[in-house]
Amino acid sequence: MNEVINQIKKRKSVRIFEEKEIPKEIKEEILNAAFEAPTAGAMMLYSILDITDNELKERLSILCDNQPFIAKAPMVLIFLADYQRWYDAYSLTNCSPRKPGEGDILLACADAIIAAQNTVVAAESLGIGSCYIGDILENCEKVRKVLDLPDYVIPAAMLVYGYPTESQKNRKKPARFDKEYIAFENRYKRLSKDEHIEMHSKRLKKSGIEGKDAVEEIRSTCKRKFMSDFSLEMNRSAKEYMKSFR
Amino acid sequence: MNEVINQIKKRKSVRIFEEKEIPKEIKEEILNAAFEAPTAGAMMLYSILDITDNELKERLSILCDNQPFIAKAPMVLIFLADYQRWYDAYSLTNCSPRKPGEGDILLACADAIIAAQNTVVAAESLGIGSCYIGDILENCEKVRKVLDLPDYVIPAAMLVYGYPTESQKNRKKPARFDKEYIAFENRYKRLSKDEHIEMHSKRLKKSGIEGKDAVEEIRSTCKRKFMSDFSLEMNRSAKEYMKSFR
Repeated sequence: MNEVINQIKKRKSVRIFEEKEIPKEIKEEILNAAFEAPTAGAMMLYSILDITDNELKERLSILCDNQPFIAKAPMVLIFLADYQRWYDAYSLTNCSPRKPGEGDILLACADAIIAAQNTVVAAESLGIGSCYIGDILENCEKVRKVLDLPDYVIPAAMLVYGYPTESQKNRKKPARFDKEYIAFENRYKRLSKDEHIEMHSKRLKKSGIEGKDAVEEIRSTCKRKFMSDFSLEMNRSAKEYMKSFR
Repeated sequence: MNEVINQIKKRKSVRIFEEKEIPKEIKEEILNAAFEAPTAGAMMLYSILDITDNELKERLSILCDNQPFIAKAPMVLIFLADYQRWYDAYSLTNCSPRKPGEGDILLACADAIIAAQNTVVAAESLGIGSCYIGDILENCEKVRKVLDLPDYVIPAAMLVYGYPTESQKNRKKPARFDKEYIAFENRYKRLSKDEHIEMHSKRLKKSGIEGKDAVEEIRSTCKRKFMSDFSLEMNRSAKEYMKSFR
């Protein structure tokens, strides 16, 4: 196993950081990794916001499902799927462009996330932990206002970065589901009820939680992740963002 | 600069591969890098299709804007944003779930792409080149049929992998736009017409194409990338996929 793969394997999300600034040149190195990422047609269909204003960090930590650790992170980047820049360029040079559509913004989301994940890998190699904040998709109207986002821009991901505390370094990486339930050959495979239960049972076992029932685990996930307020808000907000692309 | 960052910087897309199989254990190593990626709530909101059937590769190369190099790639993976698996698990355990929405599938797209980019980085470290095929978003009805995709699944990305030929190794990496037009502090910045032209002029210069006019470059990109048949099809098809999530 080479060093790159070794780092990919040991990387886990970090939410608690040492009170230590990330030096400017290291920050630049992380940001540059984004620009080096593959990008559809070399178009760079994204923009990156470097959130340095502490009040804005506070505001975002509230808008992202009230997670105070966001405000404490020494480095916060927001990756925007951005079709505004190209649409403006086309309009300003009299190309009479059509309006950006759902395909355009999905492609831009991919571009933004590819760039984001490159920064995660680069940060890890520099001893800097990171955590994705999917909640940046919530509160469309307020997030648009505080970040000055125009219509053809969607926040695809937010990331916080910092030096991990000792306890975060020693935390166990959450177990993944077994490959057989996630990767298939040639065609998609829909799982039976038994396979779903098996998939969860195996992961509970790997996590050292052998007593817990797989059905209960699925039901509790449904409550926490799918029927919960943040999830309903994320869907309401995403619908609002997507309206511009219909 | 460390080795990870060095590899991120030199990595460029590869479309022409040596006629050389990727050994099984190397393929596994690349696939495993996907599973090690960060994933929202440890939910793994994606599935991966390993396309090994040559006829299917041919079919996909046609469905993805007729790009024959896809069929010749020794390894082809499709990263599916997948809310079907969780929706099925919730339904089969009587959770009475709501229908998956636009927020759910955008989060799943992020999950899928994060995993995809980890495989790109892992492959590069093993001397294996790769190329994203955004066109997998086209031809919704046909792609759904050949891959057996249910309603709550969207192909977020396709990737081809292989050992790069000498000429591909020596190809220059396409120049990126300057950082000042892509990354902003705290708030989004909309560019003026002059800034758009400057942004493109600078890149043309970096690419060694000093004679070309920036406005012409923007207009030609609009024709090739935005008003072209593949782009219109991508938007029609994406709209069809997104219907399930409204």
